[in-house]
Amino acid sequence: MRILILGGDGYLGWPTAMHLTGQGHEVAVVDNYLRRRLCREENVEPLFEVPNLHERVDLWESVSGYKVPVFVGDLSEWDFIAEVFKSFTPEGIVHYAEQPAAPYSMLNRRAATLTLLNNLTVTANVIFAGREFCPDAHIVKIGTMGEYGTPNIDIEEGWLEVEHKGRRQNFLYPRQAGSLYHTTKIMDTDLLWFYVRMWGIRVTDLMQGPVYGLFTDENADMEQLLPFFNYDELFGTVLNRFVVQAVAGYPLTVYGKGEQTRGYLNIKDTLNCVYLSLESPAKPGELRIFNQFTEIFTVNQLAEHVQRVGTGLGMNVEIKPVKNPRKEAEEHYYNPKHTGLLELGLQPHYLTDEVLAEMMEAVLRHKDLIQHGHIYRQVKWA
Amino acid sequence: MRILILGGDGYLGWPTAMHLTGQGHEVAVVDNYLRRRLCREENVEPLFEVPNLHERVDLWESVSGYKVPVFVGDLSEWDFIAEVFKSFTPEGIVHYAEQPAAPYSMLNRRAATLTLLNNLTVTANVIFAGREFCPDAHIVKIGTMGEYGTPNIDIEEGWLEVEHKGRRQNFLYPRQAGSLYHTTKIMDTDLLWFYVRMWGIRVTDLMQGPVYGLFTDENADMEQLLPFFNYDELFGTVLNRFVVQAVAGYPLTVYGKGEQTRGYLNIKDTLNCVYLSLESPAKPGELRIFNQFTEIFTVNQLAEHVQRVGTGLGMNVEIKPVKNPRKEAEEHYYNPKHTGLLELGLQPHYLTDEVLAEMMEAVLRHKDLIQHGHIYRQVKWA
Repeated sequence: MRILILGGDGYLGWPTAMHLTGQGHEVAVVDNYLRRRLCREENVEPLFEVPNLHERVDLWESVSGYKVPVFVGDLSEWDFIAEVFKSFTPEGIVHYAEQPAAPYSMLNRRAATLTLLNNLTVTANVIFAGREFCPDAHIVKIGTMGEYGTPNIDIEEGWLEVEHKGRRQNFLYPRQAGSLYHTTKIMDTDLLWFYVRMWGIRVTDLMQGPVYGLFTDENADMEQLLPFFNYDELFGTVLNRFVVQAVAGYPLTVYGKGEQTRGYLNIKDTLNCVYLSLESPAKPGELRIFNQFTEIFTVNQLAEHVQRVGTGLGMNVEIKPVKNPRKEAEEHYYNPKHTGLLELGLQPHYLTDEVLAEMMEAVLRHKDLIQHGHIYRQVKWA
Repeated sequence: MRILILGGDGYLGWPTAMHLTGQGHEVAVVDNYLRRRLCREENVEPLFEVPNLHERVDLWESVSGYKVPVFVGDLSEWDFIAEVFKSFTPEGIVHYAEQPAAPYSMLNRRAATLTLLNNLTVTANVIFAGREFCPDAHIVKIGTMGEYGTPNIDIEEGWLEVEHKGRRQNFLYPRQAGSLYHTTKIMDTDLLWFYVRMWGIRVTDLMQGPVYGLFTDENADMEQLLPFFNYDELFGTVLNRFVVQAVAGYPLTVYGKGEQTRGYLNIKDTLNCVYLSLESPAKPGELRIFNQFTEIFTVNQLAEHVQRVGTGLGMNVEIKPVKNPRKEAEEHYYNPKHTGLLELGLQPHYLTDEVLAEMMEAVLRHKDLIQHGHIYRQVKWA
């Protein structure tokens, strides 16, 4: 299948590109290095340097023999996206091309506006360019479990059948997110759902939880093929951050009560979820939604797990609750369904002590690069 | 109260400005004439010419003695909105400043992108400028009943308490709209609701049905103070269009089965709803939602009513069902609540034969200006 990966330079984009070529797909990647630029601007660059896309593509070809065309440009510009879609005519589109960080979106007005406009414009352009140049292509969109927020009822997989005064209606599950970034993902879903109904486009929306990890089947032997690894408050997800904090001897910063509960997954499972979705595409006129995570943890559980494994490796890992800079429920009901991807064949990689130890050992090799000032910045939600 | 009307040149914006000054408020208006520009570009200009904002403000001052400052500029530009908010520091903000037409938003990619970006950017800027320059100001946002679509259960007033597997959660009513324009209004509501929760801003979201009419208490004696009156398929709402079609001897174009059901209101009631909302503002941290309409009709009922009144005035009014260019339910359940504004004191002006006859007589005075080519253009939804 010809698969175009939008945001192919990102934490998930590049590993996905390698994974899908390894599965026999013809893959091209698109990126404008937005995330690299924002990390540099905010002085929160990833743990180790990552070669640019052209360099990574060359490396991957030298290792695997697979050739991955690169398009560098901004998908929010119509002329650019039109040219890319027209020349590559994808059958599958993996849409990661968004500003991906909740804390960044709450940083200031400029960051909020950039997040809102970039994310919505790219999603709209993907829909319009798809219709014009590859109307049968299947769009696999990375959404987020954060779209649902933390409702007091079970989180179903995308849809909710409501009974009200003796009548019934099936709705897109009502969503209420905890950051502007997550709110733009709600809007993305609404936009995609509208054009699914109007134009019969084919969409899988993957409501993904926070991802952790570095290693995939494709990069394990080659450090230069590893993805970005952000450990800062702006772009680093919580478990990756805690691992770096443990290695750095920086107390694990648990926000508030630490009972915030989310569904997590290993980066290997992300790649497989995207692969499985592409292999069994949504039908024309279908918005298929999967909740994409494998295990549920509280922040306290993650901190304690990192502490236990770190201690076993001889580290001195402290846990330090700090005033929550975010506005969020610190204790809440959380029971999200996630059977769809398991039914498609997902074999989860769970968060074992070994997985955590492997991450810590990888970070240890770069311990001297860790900048303590990156870790805790306290972007306030209000 | 100091009230800033965003979109003060529009069908509702200018009448609102006159109405609120008449009620003793200090009012300023902002507009960039976007809607005038789009009507000209698409060759669907309103029935009669309307003076520009500076001219209308002068006319209104000469009639009423009230002075209304005018700001001409684009609210999607931060520097402009910041300057306006900083200099006027409103206590109440009436936000009409959006591309307001569903068919226009479905016209082509350019129109869709303009609608999406203009509407979202202006709403975001209103939130950000409000926080920076007048954090206690009450935002009265014009939403639309179209956000709800046509669900098979009762439409409550903004919120829905869901019982699911023995647990309960109160959600923003799940919304699923029938055009891109309406979808941008869903996004507006999500954006406002997010910042209501985060920053404690004060918002009233008025879910308005299609508005009809020309005359308000302030303009009845002065033709030059009448609002735009669009009768074309792009910018004209259905009842205004049918009135012009009846006068022009152009068969009333009923889409499909004509059982599409909506809540309608007289323009006088719009002004009063906005006034009542401003007088009893939402509290800090409250998103208050009212369903803003007074009567429910099917398209067939509207057509028959126009036919009956037109016939009484000696016109020959035909009704002609046409293939529906839109993708929508032509027969559906529809039971929306609308008690909130009545409880605030709204005294509805119903759609009587006299009201229709008065509209027809006004249009008759401009009969020679009606351009038949404007009326039916068949913008296809898919």
